[in-house]
Amino acid sequence: MTNTKSIEDLIEGYANSEDSSFLIPNTTEDFLAVRPSGNPISVKELVGMFNSKDLVAESSSLVKTHKIEIYGDIAYAVFTLNEIFSYKGNQNKDLSTYTCIFKNENGTWKYSWMQRSQGTTDMKTWE
Amino acid sequence: MTNTKSIEDLIEGYANSEDSSFLIPNTTEDFLAVRPSGNPISVKELVGMFNSKDLVAESSSLVKTHKIEIYGDIAYAVFTLNEIFSYKGNQNKDLSTYTCIFKNENGTWKYSWMQRSQGTTDMKTWE
Repeated sequence: MTNTKSIEDLIEGYANSEDSSFLIPNTTEDFLAVRPSGNPISVKELVGMFNSKDLVAESSSLVKTHKIEIYGDIAYAVFTLNEIFSYKGNQNKDLSTYTCIFKNENGTWKYSWMQRSQGTTDMKTWE
Repeated sequence: MTNTKSIEDLIEGYANSEDSSFLIPNTTEDFLAVRPSGNPISVKELVGMFNSKDLVAESSSLVKTHKIEIYGDIAYAVFTLNEIFSYKGNQNKDLSTYTCIFKNENGTWKYSWMQRSQGTTDMKTWE
């Protein structure tokens, strides 16, 4: 599998993982995600949020990959997801943009860092 | 100058640039910044925002660098700034967290990508 295909698969895997559990085996040990607030969250905490009765994931999908750049064993990608979920009964339809860093560890690409925007991305601004 | 010192200088330079104009000579041609909204903005547009009468920059400074990782000619860094500005007369005191990608072009390190969070970072979450 090419490096580009591996990164694309990591993006698709996360995009289609409504409860983010795809990340559990696909992140480096020091992985953190920066939330829209600017506060970091671990994978365990992130997936744990979906165990709350207040938060119900409905769907998640990739809208557009803006860029993938690979340099040896390091890569970064920028993409926008459409994430639909209910929080305390109120439905959110988020278009969130992510900047992610990937590392190739012993031949396997993994997420090593992630920052997520608010769910207010206007796709026209990315044309 | 070591690579680490070069990246630290780029972080300090941007941190202390109230109107972001430090970025003009210190970004790659394809640089974009992802705003808290998830929408991208060019350096020219970013610096242009401060030419608006509605937006008055008061101060900007580095609060904490969370990480710098360098791999050959690519690096990334995560840091939080304290940015104080007024918008239409209302003062904002933002603590915003940034994930930035840097590239070494012909011996000179430059910002090649940036994503900024909302101004709501709780520094306790980074301890």
